[in-house]
Amino acid sequence: MNDFESFQRACCEQVDDALERWLPDEAAAGDLAAAMRHIVFSGGKRLRPTLVVAGALDVGGALPSVFDDALGAAAAVEMIHAYSLLHDDLPCMDDGQLRRGKPCAHTVFGEATALLAGDGLLTLAFEVLARHTPPGRPVGEMVALLGRASGWEGMVGGQVADLAAEGSEPDVERVRNIHDGKTAAMIAVSLQLGGLSAGAGAVDVTRLGAVGRDFGLAFQIVDDLLDVESTTEALGKAAGADADRSKMTWPAAVGVEQARTDARALVERALQAAAPGQATELMASLGTFVLGRLF
Amino acid sequence: MNDFESFQRACCEQVDDALERWLPDEAAAGDLAAAMRHIVFSGGKRLRPTLVVAGALDVGGALPSVFDDALGAAAAVEMIHAYSLLHDDLPCMDDGQLRRGKPCAHTVFGEATALLAGDGLLTLAFEVLARHTPPGRPVGEMVALLGRASGWEGMVGGQVADLAAEGSEPDVERVRNIHDGKTAAMIAVSLQLGGLSAGAGAVDVTRLGAVGRDFGLAFQIVDDLLDVESTTEALGKAAGADADRSKMTWPAAVGVEQARTDARALVERALQAAAPGQATELMASLGTFVLGRLF
Repeated sequence: MNDFESFQRACCEQVDDALERWLPDEAAAGDLAAAMRHIVFSGGKRLRPTLVVAGALDVGGALPSVFDDALGAAAAVEMIHAYSLLHDDLPCMDDGQLRRGKPCAHTVFGEATALLAGDGLLTLAFEVLARHTPPGRPVGEMVALLGRASGWEGMVGGQVADLAAEGSEPDVERVRNIHDGKTAAMIAVSLQLGGLSAGAGAVDVTRLGAVGRDFGLAFQIVDDLLDVESTTEALGKAAGADADRSKMTWPAAVGVEQARTDARALVERALQAAAPGQATELMASLGTFVLGRLF
Repeated sequence: MNDFESFQRACCEQVDDALERWLPDEAAAGDLAAAMRHIVFSGGKRLRPTLVVAGALDVGGALPSVFDDALGAAAAVEMIHAYSLLHDDLPCMDDGQLRRGKPCAHTVFGEATALLAGDGLLTLAFEVLARHTPPGRPVGEMVALLGRASGWEGMVGGQVADLAAEGSEPDVERVRNIHDGKTAAMIAVSLQLGGLSAGAGAVDVTRLGAVGRDFGLAFQIVDDLLDVESTTEALGKAAGADADRSKMTWPAAVGVEQARTDARALVERALQAAAPGQATELMASLGTFVLGRLF
């Protein structure tokens, strides 16, 4: 299982099963459940959950038990990703209409229900992580790490910085700060939570954090580039949206060619940091996957 | 410290200190921090944190160490309460203008920042609970309980049910379900988290849950009655707002006199359930406080 995309498909199946079990159904929670499921089952590739499992393998977790041990964290990071999409698409934020080729939740269920479905997913993420972390693993540390990565120091902070930067002169340090918060923090904590679910020590947790931050920044730079270079049909969301909203992107700050070079360099540095781990071939394949969306 | 209101003032001081330390400041997080602080430091009486400490005393926790042990949970439930107010006041929800006599966060900082400040508070609540639960306490169980009480089975679910019920014929079972989710679940889990932070066993946790649900429902019925009977000046928010929005309230379902009778009966039942605990005088004073807002 060293090919990232086939590994990702295997993870997808397990994670989708878990999400199916752990999300409320419409019989129990009506439109709230429907809106939560609308975004969670809208065709996401489960990148973050896959990284959770990769992190577990990287510190010596063995298949197939690694899936069971990492599943709580894997579902949790996907729920947080889904909530962030719901809230980002709201009219007071990006006012999205299309997400993964489907109408956004707020256009289907109304704004209030979409907002509350996001709140419900964020809350459920912590509950699921706490309930399904294997005995003997540091559940308190894991909850705290997830909170930090997704909160004001991480994803939420990055989102605010992103909105504040709209229309400003592009500046690479400012973009780095936005992308670190919005994207890289959650990619990094995904690897870390996987590691911790499989018994990682402090050295490995720090290492996985560094690997994840570089992969995450590269991933977001590639995303910025795709927004410039791709079509709405290929993306499943509006292409050129960043420029339309005067978003501060990496290519806007350094130019398209330098952005490509930077993405490559970040993936290389991530792979060097990953070298002492036990899933180096999988990490190499992840690097190819991150860049392969573009090159 | 058996008088609830002086006990509440003592808790307030400790909890405000902790919130001051654990919330981001504007130097670190700009408007996001300002919006989080705007709602948290808007003059709330810290009822839920006080109940956390009461739960700890009730299972044998001793002053003053009980404060330290319960402080993580106490700050967490207040952050969740504050986030719920921020999101409830947004234009797509209740479109509030005034909260505790001050302008709502979205009118001061804009909708997007108010939304994200709510997300930040909800996330930070779990991080703070995880980081500040004393060693040896069941932090995973505590995070899971808080998630359940505040999520789709609790507060978020109650909020959705409340919105869905607007304009429908009042029905007491439906109101009970809304109030249980919106209010009683968080009151109950506050007592339970306090108990767990002080080493409560399963019997006490179940008992504190029952006490909290009855106190919580009584509290919300009194809130409904105050909305009918009080003035905007006395409430610090718009009086008569429930009727204006055709909210499904307890007095609308059973009448004002029966609602008063029900609130009294619920407090009595809560005190019976509280009887085996070690903070019965404090609980009695809490009952007087809940009803005293009205009678």
